[in-house]
Amino acid sequence: MKLLEDRILKDGTVVENNTLKVDAFLNHEIDVQLINECAKEWHRLFANEGITKILTIEASGIGIASITALHFGVPVVFAKKSRGANMGKNLYSTRVVSYTHGLMYDVNVAKERIKEGDRILLIDDFLANGSALKALMAICEMAGAVVVGAGIAIEKAYQKGGKELREAGLRIESLAMIESMEGGVVKFCQK
Amino acid sequence: MKLLEDRILKDGTVVENNTLKVDAFLNHEIDVQLINECAKEWHRLFANEGITKILTIEASGIGIASITALHFGVPVVFAKKSRGANMGKNLYSTRVVSYTHGLMYDVNVAKERIKEGDRILLIDDFLANGSALKALMAICEMAGAVVVGAGIAIEKAYQKGGKELREAGLRIESLAMIESMEGGVVKFCQK
Repeated sequence: MKLLEDRILKDGTVVENNTLKVDAFLNHEIDVQLINECAKEWHRLFANEGITKILTIEASGIGIASITALHFGVPVVFAKKSRGANMGKNLYSTRVVSYTHGLMYDVNVAKERIKEGDRILLIDDFLANGSALKALMAICEMAGAVVVGAGIAIEKAYQKGGKELREAGLRIESLAMIESMEGGVVKFCQK
Repeated sequence: MKLLEDRILKDGTVVENNTLKVDAFLNHEIDVQLINECAKEWHRLFANEGITKILTIEASGIGIASITALHFGVPVVFAKKSRGANMGKNLYSTRVVSYTHGLMYDVNVAKERIKEGDRILLIDDFLANGSALKALMAICEMAGAVVVGAGIAIEKAYQKGGKELREAGLRIESLAMIESMEGGVVKFCQK
């Protein structure tokens, strides 16, 4: 989506460890009008899929997923990284390795929140090695829910996640696909 | 707001440690249509205040704040509980004691995200002892931004946060104010 690509070129910065910093509009400050346009696009792409629920993972996916859920007219569920005091014990739980933070954590969804027969659209800000999406898919499988596809804002196409997951049959709609960031210059994949 | 109060009575549950569990519609699964009505109400209440930015704290405030920001046509910023790998060093940072999780953590906002002259509306799901709001206010003060008020979904009016902060001059608009939860029965304050 040109609007998002242009914004990445304008306000994104590549920092030392090959990380794209987009905290000016995506994952610290959120430009909700931009995200609303992303949400419209995901809705256009998945409108006929009978989506019953949006699933994302805290924290930076929540804003994007909530605005997207408005367009689908369905609830959003965000998987939690802590079990908290009031989450109960009846959970689907799986493990994630974070690329950005370099650590492992458990991801939890209360069993009541996803049901057999739900048709789930996964939404997240980034796709790199695919660990977050894989964790959310594992949770949906435990619940007997169908993962219809994934809407991603920014995919790092030079990392393996997108390729692996598409080969495994997942429909992924990434609105900006980065081919490389060599020398700190963001280059998008050709359509 | 009657819509929210009715939903609390219908789908909220009081769990052992005097905690109101609203993960069916507010802070695990989010009923975005309900939140959209909350957002409209906050917009009605604060429409003439020249709000330039919404500020909240991860994780459960983000969805609510993002949908609210759509109505105001301004960006949302969410304060982060971890500094992450790519957050930079130029931060406003303050400490919070969490009522729900019973632990202390730092809350961080990159200095670039809030500026002197910003007129900030704070949004959060719960107000109990007020520690999260106080932390966000401290960050705004460091930035030289004006806190115009706070929009809260559910205030536990029997805890001290709301009273203290109103006495200190903060305008707080809570859409459901709980007077007591004795015996597991939610009772709202009379208007």
